Amino acid sequence: MTRPYFLRCAYVGSGFSGFQIQTTLRSVQGELWRALRAFDPDAPMPQGTGRTDAGVHARAQGVLVQLARDWDPYRLLAAFNAHLERDVRIMKAQAAPEAFFPRAHAVAKRYVYRIQEGPAEDPFLRPFRWHVHGAAPLDRAAMARAASALVGLHDFSTFRHHECAASSTVKRVHAVRLEGEGPSLDLVFEGNRFLMHMVRIMAGTLVEVGKGRIPAGEMPAILAARDRRRAGITAPPHGLCLEEVWYQARWGVGEPSPWPEEEGLS
Amino acid sequence: MTRPYFLRCAYVGSGFSGFQIQTTLRSVQGELWRALRAFDPDAPMPQGTGRTDAGVHARAQGVLVQLARDWDPYRLLAAFNAHLERDVRIMKAQAAPEAFFPRAHAVAKRYVYRIQEGPAEDPFLRPFRWHVHGAAPLDRAAMARAASALVGLHDFSTFRHHECAASSTVKRVHAVRLEGEGPSLDLVFEGNRFLMHMVRIMAGTLVEVGKGRIPAGEMPAILAARDRRRAGITAPPHGLCLEEVWYQARWGVGEPSPWPEEEGLS
Repeated sequence: MTRPYFLRCAYVGSGFSGFQIQTTLRSVQGELWRALRAFDPDAPMPQGTGRTDAGVHARAQGVLVQLARDWDPYRLLAAFNAHLERDVRIMKAQAAPEAFFPRAHAVAKRYVYRIQEGPAEDPFLRPFRWHVHGAAPLDRAAMARAASALVGLHDFSTFRHHECAASSTVKRVHAVRLEGEGPSLDLVFEGNRFLMHMVRIMAGTLVEVGKGRIPAGEMPAILAARDRRRAGITAPPHGLCLEEVWYQARWGVGEPSPWPEEEGLS
Repeated sequence: MTRPYFLRCAYVGSGFSGFQIQTTLRSVQGELWRALRAFDPDAPMPQGTGRTDAGVHARAQGVLVQLARDWDPYRLLAAFNAHLERDVRIMKAQAAPEAFFPRAHAVAKRYVYRIQEGPAEDPFLRPFRWHVHGAAPLDRAAMARAASALVGLHDFSTFRHHECAASSTVKRVHAVRLEGEGPSLDLVFEGNRFLMHMVRIMAGTLVEVGKGRIPAGEMPAILAARDRRRAGITAPPHGLCLEEVWYQARWGVGEPSPWPEEEGLS
């Protein structure tokens, strides 16, 4: 009989080949498991909520662990962090209900894609923002118009890596917002599920709209084409961060979702 | 006949043994000079406004360079950045008046000392904030009371490294503010000049006030003692950033100073 605990995990993606465990490369899941076994040698592998790509950051990766005994949540957090390198941290820990499974019970996620404009790359923002500089500033009004075409229930095959293995390409994007002032531009994406590279391809396409290379009015046709070749470039991973994950309310885990829980979507 | 240019320089201090050039260790001044000589081989050494310690960051180090010919400021910025590593960047460049000397003509500076509270060190903030965690949150009201005692024209010998070689220890602190919400706490210091380690010793002392180890009401006596042993610890360098420098208005360089220009202080 094991005791389930839910962890909110933050990591700087630069030093990892993604969340998912791999045979030789450094992964977040692998590091978490290594740290866990230091104080619970027979613990099974921690389960994450979403796989982030190599180089992608997270502030709120949800992780379920199964422990051999009861733990005070603060002591569990401290034990984990004592055995982790400093680019990955457990920020919160709580006892989780039996049968809670983060991947299946997530109802919505927020990803933020961060951009820095201006002639010089800011050395403080460099690890976390894509530096974009052209002859003119990005046309944010055009980007906002194009972004609005992405909101809703759509087949997102256009915005999908060719190796994506998802069984369904129909996802709901709840909101796309442009935030930030001056040289900082945040593209905020909230939705129920995201395909492989979907946020990075949407971000790359919106930047090409902002540069005037793709007209904002073409976005509905690009989406309807269900053809990766119609979209823009895949934005680099270091601008992307998994910022929040919301779960079905009945589990009592994390913050309440601002978006409705939908059935029949995976 | 050389042409003077003024640069606003940002750097992540972690990779440098301070601003000032050294024989073998990596310094900001040394890197700037190396980059400069790549496109102007006979250029003299760049002059900074203030020496930052090893590991201390800057968003607004003021640097004066002398070039062999006229440059378009944008091209000068781009030439510098093409020859610099990515932890140091020229953020702005402008032609400077003859006889402008940043170190002598600075009238005020803003330093920010950044702290993160909470049980787990945030991996995104780690390079730029001192992680402080105790049994209770810092008593910010007590810290603000203690900080107010530092404002004004005082002999700051208490808050001075024993190797400090400044000829006068009388400086004016214009303002000390506590800013930030939740786990983030920024200690903002504005003044005309600062002694060696002065901001870090003030920050370390204020944190000890916040922890209840030093009563807020003792700060006037600590200041009046002119004795380093009465102050608290020297806060680590990675929380500190030289955020802004203001110059005498007559030079037309940078932003106008919010503080009056004083004579007779060095």
